[in-house]
Amino acid sequence: MKKRLAYGMVGGDTGAFIGGVHRIAVAFGGDAVLTAGAFSRDAAKNRATGEELCLEDSRVYASYEEMAAVEGGRDDGIDFVCIVTPNNTHYDVAKRFLQAGIHVLCEKPLCFTAEQGAELQRLAGEKKLLFGVNYSYTGNVMVKVAKEMIREGKLGDILNVEAQYLQEWLIDELGGASDTAKLSSWRMEPAVAGASNCVGDIGTHIENTVAYITGLKIKRVCARLGRFGYPLDFCGHILLEYENGASGIYTCSQVSIGHQNDLALRIFGTKGMLEWHEEQPDDLIWCEKGGAPQKLTRSAGYLKGPAASWSRIPSGHPEGLYEAFANIYKAFTAAVAAVKAGEAPQGNALDFPTVDDGVDGLRFLEAVLASDAADADWVNL
Amino acid sequence: MKKRLAYGMVGGDTGAFIGGVHRIAVAFGGDAVLTAGAFSRDAAKNRATGEELCLEDSRVYASYEEMAAVEGGRDDGIDFVCIVTPNNTHYDVAKRFLQAGIHVLCEKPLCFTAEQGAELQRLAGEKKLLFGVNYSYTGNVMVKVAKEMIREGKLGDILNVEAQYLQEWLIDELGGASDTAKLSSWRMEPAVAGASNCVGDIGTHIENTVAYITGLKIKRVCARLGRFGYPLDFCGHILLEYENGASGIYTCSQVSIGHQNDLALRIFGTKGMLEWHEEQPDDLIWCEKGGAPQKLTRSAGYLKGPAASWSRIPSGHPEGLYEAFANIYKAFTAAVAAVKAGEAPQGNALDFPTVDDGVDGLRFLEAVLASDAADADWVNL
Amino acid sequence: MKKRLAYGMVGGDTGAFIGGVHRIAVAFGGDAVLTAGAFSRDAAKNRATGEELCLEDSRVYASYEEMAAVEGGRDDGIDFVCIVTPNNTHYDVAKRFLQAGIHVLCEKPLCFTAEQGAELQRLAGEKKLLFGVNYSYTGNVMVKVAKEMIREGKLGDILNVEAQYLQEWLIDELGGASDTAKLSSWRMEPAVAGASNCVGDIGTHIENTVAYITGLKIKRVCARLGRFGYPLDFCGHILLEYENGASGIYTCSQVSIGHQNDLALRIFGTKGMLEWHEEQPDDLIWCEKGGAPQKLTRSAGYLKGPAASWSRIPSGHPEGLYEAFANIYKAFTAAVAAVKAGEAPQGNALDFPTVDDGVDGLRFLEAVLASDAADADWVNL
Amino acid sequence: MKKRLAYGMVGGDTGAFIGGVHRIAVAFGGDAVLTAGAFSRDAAKNRATGEELCLEDSRVYASYEEMAAVEGGRDDGIDFVCIVTPNNTHYDVAKRFLQAGIHVLCEKPLCFTAEQGAELQRLAGEKKLLFGVNYSYTGNVMVKVAKEMIREGKLGDILNVEAQYLQEWLIDELGGASDTAKLSSWRMEPAVAGASNCVGDIGTHIENTVAYITGLKIKRVCARLGRFGYPLDFCGHILLEYENGASGIYTCSQVSIGHQNDLALRIFGTKGMLEWHEEQPDDLIWCEKGGAPQKLTRSAGYLKGPAASWSRIPSGHPEGLYEAFANIYKAFTAAVAAVKAGEAPQGNALDFPTVDDGVDGLRFLEAVLASDAADADWVNL
Repeated sequence: MKKRLAYGMVGGDTGAFIGGVHRIAVAFGGDAVLTAGAFSRDAAKNRATGEELCLEDSRVYASYEEMAAVEGGRDDGIDFVCIVTPNNTHYDVAKRFLQAGIHVLCEKPLCFTAEQGAELQRLAGEKKLLFGVNYSYTGNVMVKVAKEMIREGKLGDILNVEAQYLQEWLIDELGGASDTAKLSSWRMEPAVAGASNCVGDIGTHIENTVAYITGLKIKRVCARLGRFGYPLDFCGHILLEYENGASGIYTCSQVSIGHQNDLALRIFGTKGMLEWHEEQPDDLIWCEKGGAPQKLTRSAGYLKGPAASWSRIPSGHPEGLYEAFANIYKAFTAAVAAVKAGEAPQGNALDFPTVDDGVDGLRFLEAVLASDAADADWVNL
Repeated sequence: MKKRLAYGMVGGDTGAFIGGVHRIAVAFGGDAVLTAGAFSRDAAKNRATGEELCLEDSRVYASYEEMAAVEGGRDDGIDFVCIVTPNNTHYDVAKRFLQAGIHVLCEKPLCFTAEQGAELQRLAGEKKLLFGVNYSYTGNVMVKVAKEMIREGKLGDILNVEAQYLQEWLIDELGGASDTAKLSSWRMEPAVAGASNCVGDIGTHIENTVAYITGLKIKRVCARLGRFGYPLDFCGHILLEYENGASGIYTCSQVSIGHQNDLALRIFGTKGMLEWHEEQPDDLIWCEKGGAPQKLTRSAGYLKGPAASWSRIPSGHPEGLYEAFANIYKAFTAAVAAVKAGEAPQGNALDFPTVDDGVDGLRFLEAVLASDAADADWVNL
Repeated sequence: MKKRLAYGMVGGDTGAFIGGVHRIAVAFGGDAVLTAGAFSRDAAKNRATGEELCLEDSRVYASYEEMAAVEGGRDDGIDFVCIVTPNNTHYDVAKRFLQAGIHVLCEKPLCFTAEQGAELQRLAGEKKLLFGVNYSYTGNVMVKVAKEMIREGKLGDILNVEAQYLQEWLIDELGGASDTAKLSSWRMEPAVAGASNCVGDIGTHIENTVAYITGLKIKRVCARLGRFGYPLDFCGHILLEYENGASGIYTCSQVSIGHQNDLALRIFGTKGMLEWHEEQPDDLIWCEKGGAPQKLTRSAGYLKGPAASWSRIPSGHPEGLYEAFANIYKAFTAAVAAVKAGEAPQGNALDFPTVDDGVDGLRFLEAVLASDAADADWVNL
Repeated sequence: MKKRLAYGMVGGDTGAFIGGVHRIAVAFGGDAVLTAGAFSRDAAKNRATGEELCLEDSRVYASYEEMAAVEGGRDDGIDFVCIVTPNNTHYDVAKRFLQAGIHVLCEKPLCFTAEQGAELQRLAGEKKLLFGVNYSYTGNVMVKVAKEMIREGKLGDILNVEAQYLQEWLIDELGGASDTAKLSSWRMEPAVAGASNCVGDIGTHIENTVAYITGLKIKRVCARLGRFGYPLDFCGHILLEYENGASGIYTCSQVSIGHQNDLALRIFGTKGMLEWHEEQPDDLIWCEKGGAPQKLTRSAGYLKGPAASWSRIPSGHPEGLYEAFANIYKAFTAAVAAVKAGEAPQGNALDFPTVDDGVDGLRFLEAVLASDAADADWVNL
């Protein structure tokens, strides 16, 4: 019988949302089996989730501290842990599992400050542990194709990046329709949500996805956030200068009526242009200098590079968010399996976002907040 | 520990494609566990697949006949079987499992002739067994929303249906590029492929999806198929008259350059219009008489009916083919569980395509072929 | 001072619509000056229109018969006449001006029957007069580009044509909202409207535009029209077989909610595909076999053939209906000027739809009506 | 015979481009006749243009100075002048005609500095002369509809404006393909082109179109321009703060591959959202809070306000750039006619961009340049 990895989960009881998405994403590959969990601080929910997911009672833990200690001590302990708790606990939970010698895949954001992030980064390095951070959009096949095309030089020198992430779901907050307010108190409570609402939540996805695709390093940012009288931000415009001299503009908002989850990127070079939309992730608009815009499609025969190999189903059959998540896990579990076998991960097994990306995101966020605080002065990263 | 259904699979070794999609689709719900299989006639492949999927050796069978016999006789035998073998075997395999008293979910097409289909229908009825047929597009949330809107009367009387299913993947056959020919011999071998290539493969998806959404019954068809010198069809145009007097036109083709899997439907009524595209399955274009076209989106707050409850993730995060498959299984496994508990399936558990849909598809196909043979005379269904 | 052509107009008083469009279309080129008219049978309206358009009183005629006689007899009589009267008068008016030796540009439809059309065709031939028929969509630049690409062999052999012309403006007729009925009595009065409403009005535009672009000859048609209890048709589906063996499907409707003037064509060949939409006339979707769909744009640098020379303004600045009309006149007036100079029209001056196209349209219409009357039997053209 | 206005033109010989567009735009309305001109400093070209356009010899002038003097002194002198000379002459030419007591319609930019602009503004005011500036995009019907919807309060309070104007035509400059360089020397010569290339040419169109639609006043700007080693700018990102507290981001570029003339605006309010694209000017995307995005179309029946009355042709028939220009002239000539009749222009006759808009554009440009010079500090307008 095939040897599969064992994994555990912190958070993600059956009433929660994102934990279930992770479990299905792992199931896509069939490379790892959920074996242990501390799903909720509520003992009844925790137990019920363990039963629902067919875990042995002894592997359902009352606390993540206990889980890290016991699983870290077992010979057949979990190979990695998936952390899907509220944002303000990521740091503590991740640290504990690293200290217990267990590989980590953590939902984003990695933690609250770049300083905390650097500590986790250091710790993972010392312990030689893998640390994935779930910037899930980099799991999309056409995002990987875009990255490959840029690496192949198809865009020439990048001149300009224009990216946005627009949502509408917090608009009721601004319209006075308080009775339908969706703003859970924790979102505007810096102690729980961190120093930012919108930029921290979705602006960092822009930062990460652009960095993944282009490889550009941000030199400095000039930002203006919109708070509309609340302690935290609902939207932001961010000018960027990259180290290669290119300029960028990132717009993020959770009060943009008519937009559901509109992450969109346009990358302009001296030789070509690429455009990608998360809401139609299987398409990639490509225009070569002097030519007409083309709509490249996932799984099409003309995509010949390794990036295309991430596609699961034939062209024209849509893949969505689950498949992107599943690709993150495909890489991550391959990396864990390699390390477990005493080998260095290679090729696709390297293609998942790591603690380094998490730290980059926090540095970006801190620079944006500092620039906004200084009335949109440039702040270096 | 939660009680899960046990299921088996016929066909679907790890080298095949569609079996894996079914296994992931089941895994989405976590309601059933793969427990038995006859994955391949090749003993080595069969065994390897069983190991890869962590089955007990004793539940990996050399033939589907043995599997049906043994599993049908065990107290803890499989609750249902998933059939993903080549089309020309569906009839025999399905019949055998029905005779063994096991619920069936069969890939489409159900079988080769309406007569065979009617026999399976009768057998399932006699045995009081569930029989699902995987017309997967009806699993899309916005297809369900469209059906709900029509049932609510939003379109008024339906006047006209225009639907297409266009692919390009067989075009090389017609251009003389024989060295890159994709036409596996079986596709043009009526003994293996059945009496039709294109209409049987994708035209029936149009028929089923339109029937599901609209509830219209086809009265007669007038068809012209394109064979380009081959024994079987590459494309077809089909005029339809429905029993309510509405007219329709279905176009299917596997030689339409620039189209990957372009199933698209437009339904015109006296009060409104709906349009859906499989390649962007989360959108549904809706236009009320006198108004402007609107783009309805899966999971959006304004979708309030039960159909919307099939959505798994928030608006703007795309769902694709796997999620549609998973919805078929969500309904089917709920129905199996209900029957096992001695109850009649209700509500969502009824919302999967059945052997009746399979038979309708075969009747449609036979009428189309007869019309084409008669140089596009009308043929009644 | 530049010598300009003098033209006259029959119909098109200032209260009417289409006459004004023609006058502006002529003004685009500045090659002809409105010099005479019989704008309305209503003397007051006729006079007022003449004044508004700054004509000399002596060139404003009480009847087209008088106008033809007088202008045909003057040395400085009009060089051509533009006929924009109701459809049921086209035949008589056109005939009179041909008999008077005056070139004609007539709104479509040319007349009511193929027999009448053939007579006009013969007459124009005998008199060596130019006879344009305003199938305006062939004036669009990207329609000309499509034609050029096909002539260059970019599509290989044409396999299939799928075209539609969908409008919604007559839907109120079918919904019982009689008080808002837009159906002017003449539209459903065969004596005034001719033998067809929808196919005659817009179906013939499909026929003409496809013929212009592809050069395909229709061999036979198989049609089903929708009348919904009225004497004339509101919609129709038409299967076609072309002389080269290709098949086609044309759909036209004036009861398709959500569609304003949705003329759209898709042409599938063995080497490529083209798609054009009248509502976005500056784009042309092109897909080469094995490649991705591209959006070609009017005036873009990569369009190098003569067709592109019809573009008036830079790429990205939209051209619309007036520009298409103006291109018809650009060709027609150049042809008239050439003939006047004793030369044969050449090149672009040949690129306007003629009485031959008008007759083709009537033959198509008569075959469609005959097929429908025979319950969708094939009818040869 | 109808009394028509007489107008003159400075610049716009038949070899030039934009003059011809203006002449056709005037011809759409038929309210004014070209009567005088100083089309070129080249005497032969000037004379040839006069002949081509059928002017009397005595009304074709060797210089604009002579033309202003003579026409200003004639009883039947021109009613207004249209200025389509190179940008660096606008100020002198406009001033001369104002001094001669002649109404002016000037191509944009109005002139080079806000100071010059203010002088023209003052002069027009003193002389009680009309002064139009051809910001042509405000002539689009759906731009007027957008303005009307905002005035009616459909968007609530405006929170955010995101606008872009992207072109690709200067990209060859940056790629080293010097042999195909399109950059005419004057474009990078500040003495001829003014202080800015890209922002002055197209950024000001964003500024004007947004101001027209929203009525928002800009409080301050924070800008970063891209020069890539040239004296003038090829692209720019501009953060804005409006007086009502809303924020904005304008992006303009002439080096964005894949974009022809992509002026696009999105306006986000507390109650709704509007989106408009110049390349598809007949559509307007509208989304009400809690609803789905709708595509409003020019001439559709559900558009009931006065803005819709600017539409010329039925819904679905595209209008383009010429029609937008023609609408500017429709308003302007109505205003000139009113003033000539001793009346104050009213209603639609007020709806053309004026010297005030020209001055606003220059102030915006100067602030943007100052901000960029200060490394993106905020600069107040």
